[in-house]
Amino acid sequence: MGRSRLEAFTDGVIAILVTIMVLDLRPPHGSRLSDLDPLLGRVLVYLLSFVFVAIYWNNHHHLMQAVDRIDGRVLWANMALLFCLSLTPAATAWMGAHSSSPGPVAVYGIILLASAVAYFVLIRALLRIHGPESALALALGRDRKGRLSAAAYVVAVTLAFVVPAAAIAIYVAVALVWLVPDRRFESTISS
Amino acid sequence: MGRSRLEAFTDGVIAILVTIMVLDLRPPHGSRLSDLDPLLGRVLVYLLSFVFVAIYWNNHHHLMQAVDRIDGRVLWANMALLFCLSLTPAATAWMGAHSSSPGPVAVYGIILLASAVAYFVLIRALLRIHGPESALALALGRDRKGRLSAAAYVVAVTLAFVVPAAAIAIYVAVALVWLVPDRRFESTISS
Amino acid sequence: MGRSRLEAFTDGVIAILVTIMVLDLRPPHGSRLSDLDPLLGRVLVYLLSFVFVAIYWNNHHHLMQAVDRIDGRVLWANMALLFCLSLTPAATAWMGAHSSSPGPVAVYGIILLASAVAYFVLIRALLRIHGPESALALALGRDRKGRLSAAAYVVAVTLAFVVPAAAIAIYVAVALVWLVPDRRFESTISS
Amino acid sequence: MGRSRLEAFTDGVIAILVTIMVLDLRPPHGSRLSDLDPLLGRVLVYLLSFVFVAIYWNNHHHLMQAVDRIDGRVLWANMALLFCLSLTPAATAWMGAHSSSPGPVAVYGIILLASAVAYFVLIRALLRIHGPESALALALGRDRKGRLSAAAYVVAVTLAFVVPAAAIAIYVAVALVWLVPDRRFESTISS
Repeated sequence: MGRSRLEAFTDGVIAILVTIMVLDLRPPHGSRLSDLDPLLGRVLVYLLSFVFVAIYWNNHHHLMQAVDRIDGRVLWANMALLFCLSLTPAATAWMGAHSSSPGPVAVYGIILLASAVAYFVLIRALLRIHGPESALALALGRDRKGRLSAAAYVVAVTLAFVVPAAAIAIYVAVALVWLVPDRRFESTISS
Repeated sequence: MGRSRLEAFTDGVIAILVTIMVLDLRPPHGSRLSDLDPLLGRVLVYLLSFVFVAIYWNNHHHLMQAVDRIDGRVLWANMALLFCLSLTPAATAWMGAHSSSPGPVAVYGIILLASAVAYFVLIRALLRIHGPESALALALGRDRKGRLSAAAYVVAVTLAFVVPAAAIAIYVAVALVWLVPDRRFESTISS
Repeated sequence: MGRSRLEAFTDGVIAILVTIMVLDLRPPHGSRLSDLDPLLGRVLVYLLSFVFVAIYWNNHHHLMQAVDRIDGRVLWANMALLFCLSLTPAATAWMGAHSSSPGPVAVYGIILLASAVAYFVLIRALLRIHGPESALALALGRDRKGRLSAAAYVVAVTLAFVVPAAAIAIYVAVALVWLVPDRRFESTISS
Repeated sequence: MGRSRLEAFTDGVIAILVTIMVLDLRPPHGSRLSDLDPLLGRVLVYLLSFVFVAIYWNNHHHLMQAVDRIDGRVLWANMALLFCLSLTPAATAWMGAHSSSPGPVAVYGIILLASAVAYFVLIRALLRIHGPESALALALGRDRKGRLSAAAYVVAVTLAFVVPAAAIAIYVAVALVWLVPDRRFESTISS
């Protein structure tokens, strides 16, 4: 089974997700620059979510370059990832409106965690049909960055109930770590 | 006539459908976790619709791999399928808000039934130009799963007027049956 | 300059247009089947618009199969077509809510006419770089169907101010005529 | 690393952006033609934004045809461009509702400027891996048109606080200049 249509579908869903989040950036009713002030927090949360979804696109792009074939299990693991990511706009809108409340900040982290788990399941489904000696397995290695991110999300979700701002700081830190593209694949593929 | 642009267009529409349903998951006005309670039912109905639309994408993906050529009739049968699927977000929003009322639950099933009928018409249009000895015809066989699903939808729509919850249980059961990818194509194509 | 990315972009915009129209089909507040009654007119207008946009996709698909190359003029003619088509959702929502008022019915026809003119300009831009002896020119012939449709829209827009229902009948008739795929291309290309 | 999936993703996001702007063109509540009057300004601003985003698609299309390879830096520069462009619908909606107020007109220009800067950064990232003797470098030349546009945006944003209409006139003028496709690439590539 080829991977190209799966890539195209995933690209479509991610492109839409990244774009419809912007629908929640409603222009203010007034026309003065100061009317934009309450929007600033929303724009920053939108930027954070844009970066997270873009990171998944980037990593998915790199991951698929090391993939030879897919099966039904991979298709559904990919759908589960897209479903988790599709909850990002709602979580973004909630945290954008209440960025200092425990509930919205914790839920945002739970969606990030669910997406990370779904990505992990997708990797497992791919490794299952590629084997431990494949270019994919070598490129992925022990996936330390993925495991640490998931652990950071768990810490952040817990922390959100005490100091919401600290949880957001962790989300930003994880995003910054991932902004560096996954060199594992670049080096393995080009060698 | 090639099938690739039809696949790309179908992927585009399905990717958008699956994603815009999430626009109905409006974050609550309050900022407490308990404010999410009324959303839970909506999220579950969204998950069910996501799975149904994803099943169509999966089956369409498998179906097209056995297709050699298409014609104008196939193009329009495919458009009819997309039209039926495009009513899913509205039906999802209605059932998400009223999951224990006969009307919304029955209408949801009618949209599922219409999509199943459109898919059946698409298969007929494809078989017409491929012939009974084609790989496509062999792969499809008697399409028992498709026929049984349509029958289940008819039962569920009727049942919705008496016990809405039982109708929803049937929808979930049909979705679970289809979650298993269509092995007919995988085995035929790889052999 | 290749045509594939132009096709992909056009498919993307048309797929989105066809799908976001459905966002105006808001589920009713009530939960009884009779609450759907006021929606029926909207669904029918949505179906009409879906068919019109699908016809453009179909014809664009066939047209591009006879195209060898494109230039900047073609790119912009194509953008003009997409702009006209992108006004369809707003016109659909207006006519869906007021299907017996002259204004909305006339504006709907004006958008159809604008799209037809833009498609005509696109064809001219393509013929300019393919020449009168090209497969494209032969396939297009005198484009009688396109010219008659434009004339029908002009009649319908005028008629809308007197008998809106008659204008809608003309729109439906034109859609039915185009539902038959453009045999000119199929026969020319396969021969 | 191939460029095709980057193109597909960029096309997807731009197609969605160009289309969701139309969601702000809400049909009027009344049904008379005169009820459309307050919409006219919005339609014109939408047309302007449509042209700007279409120009980016066009230039991106031409740019990528001279590109041999991409890297992680290019992926992120491209994401930054898409993020800036994704703010266009919100800026369009605000300026569409208040086209004679300094704030919305200035913010519109700031989004245009941010997109221009992001495009410039993308070009730099591409030149870094192609070298000064590449077809890309020759095709780009000194990018006078890009630099002049950015300067025009700075002037317009400043001017917006004094004469908003003059700023809008500058936006329109820049759009008209870019409507002519980038001949640099066409001539270089075909030679």
